[in-house]
Amino acid sequence: MFKRILIANRGEIAVRVIRACQEMGIETVAVYSDADKNAMHVQLADLTYNIGPADASQSYLNMDALLEAAKATKAEAVHPGYGFLSESSEFAEKVTNAGLTWIGPLAETIRQVGDKDIARAAMLPSGIPMAKGSDPLTSESHAIEAAKEVGYPVILKPVAGGGGKGMFVAYSEEDLKNILQIVNLQSIKFYFEHYIEHSRHIEVQIVADNYGTVIHLGERECSLQRRNQKLLEESPSIGLSPEMREEIGALAIKAAKSIHYTNIGTVEFLFDLSNNQFYFMEINPRIQVEHAITEEVTGVDLVRTQIHIAFGEPLTLSQKDIEFHGHAIECRINAEDPDNNFLPSPGKIEFYHEPGGPRIRVDSGISAGLSIEPDYDSLMAKVVVHGRTRGDAIKIMQRALNEFKVEGVKTTISLHKRILEDTSFCTGDIDTQFIKKRLPAYEQTPPKRKLKDKMDLAALINSSMYYA
Amino acid sequence: MFKRILIANRGEIAVRVIRACQEMGIETVAVYSDADKNAMHVQLADLTYNIGPADASQSYLNMDALLEAAKATKAEAVHPGYGFLSESSEFAEKVTNAGLTWIGPLAETIRQVGDKDIARAAMLPSGIPMAKGSDPLTSESHAIEAAKEVGYPVILKPVAGGGGKGMFVAYSEEDLKNILQIVNLQSIKFYFEHYIEHSRHIEVQIVADNYGTVIHLGERECSLQRRNQKLLEESPSIGLSPEMREEIGALAIKAAKSIHYTNIGTVEFLFDLSNNQFYFMEINPRIQVEHAITEEVTGVDLVRTQIHIAFGEPLTLSQKDIEFHGHAIECRINAEDPDNNFLPSPGKIEFYHEPGGPRIRVDSGISAGLSIEPDYDSLMAKVVVHGRTRGDAIKIMQRALNEFKVEGVKTTISLHKRILEDTSFCTGDIDTQFIKKRLPAYEQTPPKRKLKDKMDLAALINSSMYYA
Repeated sequence: MFKRILIANRGEIAVRVIRACQEMGIETVAVYSDADKNAMHVQLADLTYNIGPADASQSYLNMDALLEAAKATKAEAVHPGYGFLSESSEFAEKVTNAGLTWIGPLAETIRQVGDKDIARAAMLPSGIPMAKGSDPLTSESHAIEAAKEVGYPVILKPVAGGGGKGMFVAYSEEDLKNILQIVNLQSIKFYFEHYIEHSRHIEVQIVADNYGTVIHLGERECSLQRRNQKLLEESPSIGLSPEMREEIGALAIKAAKSIHYTNIGTVEFLFDLSNNQFYFMEINPRIQVEHAITEEVTGVDLVRTQIHIAFGEPLTLSQKDIEFHGHAIECRINAEDPDNNFLPSPGKIEFYHEPGGPRIRVDSGISAGLSIEPDYDSLMAKVVVHGRTRGDAIKIMQRALNEFKVEGVKTTISLHKRILEDTSFCTGDIDTQFIKKRLPAYEQTPPKRKLKDKMDLAALINSSMYYA
Repeated sequence: MFKRILIANRGEIAVRVIRACQEMGIETVAVYSDADKNAMHVQLADLTYNIGPADASQSYLNMDALLEAAKATKAEAVHPGYGFLSESSEFAEKVTNAGLTWIGPLAETIRQVGDKDIARAAMLPSGIPMAKGSDPLTSESHAIEAAKEVGYPVILKPVAGGGGKGMFVAYSEEDLKNILQIVNLQSIKFYFEHYIEHSRHIEVQIVADNYGTVIHLGERECSLQRRNQKLLEESPSIGLSPEMREEIGALAIKAAKSIHYTNIGTVEFLFDLSNNQFYFMEINPRIQVEHAITEEVTGVDLVRTQIHIAFGEPLTLSQKDIEFHGHAIECRINAEDPDNNFLPSPGKIEFYHEPGGPRIRVDSGISAGLSIEPDYDSLMAKVVVHGRTRGDAIKIMQRALNEFKVEGVKTTISLHKRILEDTSFCTGDIDTQFIKKRLPAYEQTPPKRKLKDKMDLAALINSSMYYA
């Protein structure tokens, strides 16, 4: 096994990788920017290396600095985490060329899945269902023609995009013309897909070794998004029949095999609620933020698995070994102000207490005294619960969020509490528009009152609200 | 189901019960002494009630105050936790007489298992193996005769004792005479058991409903004790064959059935390493500190189960439903100074950060800013890990303890780190004398050096210790 791994990342995912390495007896190298001198991943790693200023373009995105750190610390492999350079085929190639192991798919695969045009073309022969799409758009007139051909509503997507960024929906030619005033088809390559309005985002975790074995670890329901950014994920997805579950798993494996995918990855689908059909969206060639819910329901450690595969080990699990137990939910706790348009809320954490006890897992990279840095992503902690059923998991998450105390920055904990007491969520009536539709209601009604809260007990007992 | 439960306890076990209740939709009443006004269980409960001064005899052991609290808050049931009044048949009876439900076995059962003389007599007809014992000792001369009859070495135990307190071992008549200078046979009832020197403490978790169904949830290995107080527990017990595991489970069920035991409980055995025989010790009629390791390997929530049974529900699980997965270890983190004869270390917690991430559970009742009160038990937190194998669990525990940061009080974290890197422990060469035998060695050798620790990286790379 590797003796030492460099983690080209920060925050909770760097901590997550360090944990896996420590459990495997592998030494870790934490890299850090000037802003992260005291960060948790720096505290926990065996070796640390400064890679530059706070600005990510000069540190966590600085390929030369990262390669220098790996060389200086004699690391044997590089784990990219998610975000930053995790989907850079160029960096994967540089790592490999420097004689190190890239813990992820081949650079060639990352390139292939990173270009949606190429990825879609690669999937076509296998018959994987896809929303009708266009070629890359060359001009405004081409766009107008292509949109007609694809059929409104259409969604304009950057060919090289990912993670839900830089996308626009047009319901009519007028809409489209307005959008084309903003986007520059010459500087960024865009294409169209027919837009599936009433849908859910469902993704499948796949695991593939270097010897052709590909299995899936079930699906994740990720429809609860705000501006295409996931807020709350769960596994399994409510409302899928066993047959549908088998179908989406088989489709994901087919997609992975069609491009000889290796290591772990996620095949994202849209599930069209109007006809119960899955449509392929994209493959993410890295660990996902929401990987923990899959770990909870399957018992498979995805980060350890990434490392075993990258080291060249064949998979010891076959599809029939994978059992699914219970229901897992993850809430992403961001340092953002839900009462102020989700404005990032950086600053020093004055008090910090995570929930504990049975069936709860918190993945975070902070503690009291540390700061949420304005230069980076606002994800602060992930609360993951594992219940027997979805209802059980919801109850456990509610009690977990009630225990979570953060002072010094605003967080999205209150938003998650609202979602979890929303009967539409509880009954599983969700789609990708859920958050957009429900947010105004959350803002207008006060949250459920707690029984006590430093109330005078005698007054409480004598009042009727005691039994409310 | 109950609408409201009063928890007649404090600390981590009160928090544990609150968590179970919240997940079941049951309101909770926290009682607190003057010292515990800001305690975590008070923060988390729906209702709170002051029951008196810090001195436990006037608060947590004050039956009248507790019953008054239950009446005032209209609680329907009382959960006693462990310690305090959890093994008081008198309190159980008073709770029942007040029209409330006692979440535990019948008062009569508590009385029966609390008197070792009666308990042993009750087990005898079922043929449950027991170390040879004496009747209660009436005088010094009776004691000397009885010791001869039982055979040296003998252990002098209080008939009404429990939890390993007030016990003395005599290897010879001379030893015994010295001990009899200290203990007063007239004021406390004592008896002898033949002392099994080379043994392990192995206990079995049993679950029994009110309708005669009794199952077991496997065993816990609890040999790592200091002065008869458990430090580290694990499940399963290393070195038991499947046949021995089946045997001890069957013995525990037989013991429970022989006294018509209800609710959950623990049957404690000594496992004689000289002949691989189990000997019955006692039954604990309450939740144990170490219950969480059983929850991790079986997936059964023991506190929820207590509540369901007390409400009168029949068990929905049968013995064949119980599956055992992986290996769990618990480390008890006490606010004690391991470098100073384990002197309690009360005081204000200045900084507190629990470990997180996969496969880790922390049950605690504190946070930064709260205090470890000198009036109560020094147990601060329980770190529980769940690995695929024992070796995996040890690695996970090591990384967990490295993440655990406490400032303001001394803790036993450092002792646990030493145990986990002790090859005798790792190979499973343990017995009840393990801690006593190994402590001097731990005190003499420094702990393993960490690779870095704010070391200068360049110097480190150029030095040979880098690869140590």
